[in-house]
Amino acid sequence: MNWRDGYIAVDWGTTNRRAFSIGGDGRVIDRLADDRGLLAVGKDGFEAAAAEIIEKLGDRPMLLAGMVGSNRGWHEAPYVDCPASAPALAAAIHWIEPGRVGIVPGVCQRGVAGADVMRGEEVQAIGAVAAGLVSPNGMLCHPGTHAKWLRMHGGGIAGFTTSMTGEMFSLLSRHSILADQLQGAVAADESFAAGVADALAGKELLSALFGIRARWLLGEGKADASYASGLLIGSDVRAALDTGTSEVALIGTPELCALYAAALGIAGREFVAIDGETAFLAGIRLLTEML
Amino acid sequence: MNWRDGYIAVDWGTTNRRAFSIGGDGRVIDRLADDRGLLAVGKDGFEAAAAEIIEKLGDRPMLLAGMVGSNRGWHEAPYVDCPASAPALAAAIHWIEPGRVGIVPGVCQRGVAGADVMRGEEVQAIGAVAAGLVSPNGMLCHPGTHAKWLRMHGGGIAGFTTSMTGEMFSLLSRHSILADQLQGAVAADESFAAGVADALAGKELLSALFGIRARWLLGEGKADASYASGLLIGSDVRAALDTGTSEVALIGTPELCALYAAALGIAGREFVAIDGETAFLAGIRLLTEML
Repeated sequence: MNWRDGYIAVDWGTTNRRAFSIGGDGRVIDRLADDRGLLAVGKDGFEAAAAEIIEKLGDRPMLLAGMVGSNRGWHEAPYVDCPASAPALAAAIHWIEPGRVGIVPGVCQRGVAGADVMRGEEVQAIGAVAAGLVSPNGMLCHPGTHAKWLRMHGGGIAGFTTSMTGEMFSLLSRHSILADQLQGAVAADESFAAGVADALAGKELLSALFGIRARWLLGEGKADASYASGLLIGSDVRAALDTGTSEVALIGTPELCALYAAALGIAGREFVAIDGETAFLAGIRLLTEML
Repeated sequence: MNWRDGYIAVDWGTTNRRAFSIGGDGRVIDRLADDRGLLAVGKDGFEAAAAEIIEKLGDRPMLLAGMVGSNRGWHEAPYVDCPASAPALAAAIHWIEPGRVGIVPGVCQRGVAGADVMRGEEVQAIGAVAAGLVSPNGMLCHPGTHAKWLRMHGGGIAGFTTSMTGEMFSLLSRHSILADQLQGAVAADESFAAGVADALAGKELLSALFGIRARWLLGEGKADASYASGLLIGSDVRAALDTGTSEVALIGTPELCALYAAALGIAGREFVAIDGETAFLAGIRLLTEML
């Protein structure tokens, strides 16, 4: 099978999927994007769901990445251990149809201290380097429900850390004693900056959060959702910056990237926002060149 | 009204209430304990609920403390600002029936940095000092849903910090991606010690928590509930010990005190467990002596 004549690249996550038909010249010919993620497809629906992609984009070699390779996905593609280079990822592709339909493995760190896992971000990371969007020894941040910070070395993934930053905000705003106070909009405002500053100063998260409740009881509450978001993102930024000194490349939605950019700015750090789709397609292309 | 002939002391919280009939010699003559806390009584039920106490324990002067003085309680007793001495608390008692039925105020800290509130723990704190259970310049810890650390000075409350330690464990075990892994029993075991050690070493909470998920996915999970509890309590202990150097007196349920004692031990700190009821009754007695 000659991948140089073109292929289909699929980013298949828990709630969404995006598929791209790529021509021999590397350009996007056609695309599909919908909400047929793992939750919608269900364990037994992947054959049919993959057929939908082929019907729309043509019957071509296909490389998939993301949660589609998890134990709740189409086929489980075992993790590659860190440090994880692009050749190591290519060599560990889990082939559903040998040489023609494969799933890119996720990456893991083992051991009690730094145990961690990712699925999908690894393709964007190697692609961001391949496309010249980030230094081969740079740092990438994927904000989100489970925010990921990747330390790159020689274009491969040297190590990474996941924080449940977004999930924690969701837990607090939906189920905690702070719920009423966290219903407002989150913006990179003065309260957000105060939260980031408290986190960077090392204020303990569990007591800083209770302070939101106390200020409200004392009639001193103000833009509490922004403050809480600043605390959580600031805590995330502080921990990540302890481990590296390079420029940070942000990959994510414009809203989340704006918040992380603000927090990084307060921490006095350089950053650049890069396009996730461009990075993903460059990563898949790099892998196909190794087949 | 002469409080020296005896009185009724009431510790009235959100979910429970305890009332004690105290004789002229300071001993407990009779008592009542039930689940008629604020949630069960409701805003309009306090007159009747107080009458139940009088019916059971006699019509005597009555001093109440706890959430009964909050805006969801019987009458709102405004907070006394820190530093808060026993005489300041006595002078600020909110009288429902002048000189005869009163509610002890809560204590607060104002300002963006350390805003905090308490209701009920202040009576135990001044009582613990009065009864010789803790040094007038000691430190008290009340583990719980919202764990409180009080720094005493000259027998009064110099300052305090609340952490949503217990609530966070509850949020994580009921609503988070970690819920399945946090259903096991929590004990001061090896995993708990590992969590405490990670927190004391300054490991960021949001990423340490995700590590629980990662270890489970990698088949390395072990006594995760104990580890999570150790992380949260360790984080709480670390922050509190940054602010004081004295021996810590623990007031709380035996189960929670055992976990905090283990965490304090790992942090190399001295501690002593003291009886909350003894401290409460000594605190109310101290206040009545100032009337």
